Amino acid sequence: MTQMMKALTQLHDGYSNTQTGPNIDDLTPFVALRDVPVPTPGDGQALIKVHLAAVNPSDIHFIKGEYGQPRVQGMPAGFEAVGEVIAGDTPLIEQRVSFFASASGAWAEYAMTDAARLVPCRPDLAEVDAAGQLVNPLTAIAMFDLVKESGAESFVLNAAGSQLGKLLIALGRDQGIAPIAVVRRPAQADMLRDLGAVEVIVTGDDDPVSKARSIFKARKPRILLDAVGDQVTADLFFAMPSHAVWVNYGKLATEAPKLTQLGQMIFQNKRIEGFWLTRWMQKVDPARIPAAFAEIQERFVSGKWSTDVAGIVPLSDAMIQLPRVLAQRDGKAFIDPRL
Amino acid sequence: MTQMMKALTQLHDGYSNTQTGPNIDDLTPFVALRDVPVPTPGDGQALIKVHLAAVNPSDIHFIKGEYGQPRVQGMPAGFEAVGEVIAGDTPLIEQRVSFFASASGAWAEYAMTDAARLVPCRPDLAEVDAAGQLVNPLTAIAMFDLVKESGAESFVLNAAGSQLGKLLIALGRDQGIAPIAVVRRPAQADMLRDLGAVEVIVTGDDDPVSKARSIFKARKPRILLDAVGDQVTADLFFAMPSHAVWVNYGKLATEAPKLTQLGQMIFQNKRIEGFWLTRWMQKVDPARIPAAFAEIQERFVSGKWSTDVAGIVPLSDAMIQLPRVLAQRDGKAFIDPRL
Repeated sequence: MTQMMKALTQLHDGYSNTQTGPNIDDLTPFVALRDVPVPTPGDGQALIKVHLAAVNPSDIHFIKGEYGQPRVQGMPAGFEAVGEVIAGDTPLIEQRVSFFASASGAWAEYAMTDAARLVPCRPDLAEVDAAGQLVNPLTAIAMFDLVKESGAESFVLNAAGSQLGKLLIALGRDQGIAPIAVVRRPAQADMLRDLGAVEVIVTGDDDPVSKARSIFKARKPRILLDAVGDQVTADLFFAMPSHAVWVNYGKLATEAPKLTQLGQMIFQNKRIEGFWLTRWMQKVDPARIPAAFAEIQERFVSGKWSTDVAGIVPLSDAMIQLPRVLAQRDGKAFIDPRL
Repeated sequence: MTQMMKALTQLHDGYSNTQTGPNIDDLTPFVALRDVPVPTPGDGQALIKVHLAAVNPSDIHFIKGEYGQPRVQGMPAGFEAVGEVIAGDTPLIEQRVSFFASASGAWAEYAMTDAARLVPCRPDLAEVDAAGQLVNPLTAIAMFDLVKESGAESFVLNAAGSQLGKLLIALGRDQGIAPIAVVRRPAQADMLRDLGAVEVIVTGDDDPVSKARSIFKARKPRILLDAVGDQVTADLFFAMPSHAVWVNYGKLATEAPKLTQLGQMIFQNKRIEGFWLTRWMQKVDPARIPAAFAEIQERFVSGKWSTDVAGIVPLSDAMIQLPRVLAQRDGKAFIDPRL
């Protein structure tokens, strides 16, 4: 007899060809709470009982059909979580692991993934830190490698008040590369300065680009880590010094930025590129990944990083509660299938 | 007593902060025909009696203050030419050389440059080929290295009917990497096909991007060599397959293209960058440069490349005649100081 489980399953296949950003008011067009069979692990796979699943912007892009991989109708959604391995082709049975749910999604009582990709968790790592230790922390570590390779003494990041933004600021603070934070709301400025941002540019202020230009002139950043993709981002990029690289990793804005100073690509050796964690993991030296997770867990346990929790919602009521928690701009949302 | 010479000298210093493209109707706001002292070569410099100077889009950008280096009021304009070395710190005295006029411009009876950068010419190399063998041919060779490194079996280039475009098409034809040519005017299509373009996309046609998409799907180009920088270029880039690189090296259009599919930078690993010959020469393996000139001269002499001449104007009458010759869209303009 097939064992059944609750899961938020996808209602659509493939891509939507829309670009509506990572906000969501209503989950009902995209996922539904269903009873589905618990997946059966095959060769090289592991089945995990989910303790706590993270909700990231990439999850919302994904269920809306706006992410870099196609949806599969009927499959549980949810990319990352922490849980206990209960079956599969792995010596980690009964251990607590963080994981990226590649075979069956994490917004469910049980999830399935490649056994080789399980990340064992230190016992002193908190559940909320463990649930979200892949997507944001690994992205922060990977993109900060670009910052270090740039050789500059500062870097620029926007959406700086996001969970990922705060991780990046703390990395800059601890590794001596000055974070120049870009935010929309002045209310966040003090918090980001306290965290380690040496400068805060508020895009809602009058003429933020002129202010940015004088900051950039003094601090000479080379990398712009961009989760927004709007015209202000393009203007900041063109205000940066020679050799600047605009690294886009998210799209909070729905507008299409204009390249008003294309000649800078030629004469100032500027470049625009993207960062995707999935591709980074495919091409990075495999030894870098366990080293990164050791660093990530150490940073959380020692308090160098922390997870701001906006709310934890029960899986059974996530259709209703999740949009409300996501509407809070500060902090991260989680789904607990055991509640 | 100082020897004097005729020269087209610059009327302005620095940059103009305009972006008006490489077209010009009237030279009088930017340069004037003047009698100026023949420059005196210092250590490591050579003085050249100019035989024939080329007129490139970069020259026009430069005199208008829109190029990557500042103007110097009173200095002769003109980047490249062929001539005879008549004095200086070089064993090449009395030899015919092509050169980039780094110390005193080439739109003059005499020009001055770094002696180390002189390019001796084969006796069988025609004067028009010799006058223009640096900027366009070396750019073509250097950018074609990017095409080869891409590993793709085709590449895309716009402004394909330009002198540089034709050099690139011939390189693709001879080295087995299929050129996909983008032009504005249907009249050029047959000529480009005869030259070696396997496909011609005419941007004035209905829905050129859909046509391009099906061509790109079949031929999988990775490099877009762009001298235009308009919205059609951006649309073509976003119609290209994963891993496409938009290499901008010129700005014929004055519009600012919009990045309508920024997410492709993330999920499809696309990239936007610039190419500038000046930077390439600074960082390339120095042995690559004489090898490139041997290849360039061989290609011209053997007929694999040819120079289309729109007209040769006397230096003494260039203020009047040059804009008329430049207005002819096909072929290259030259200035002869001996006429």
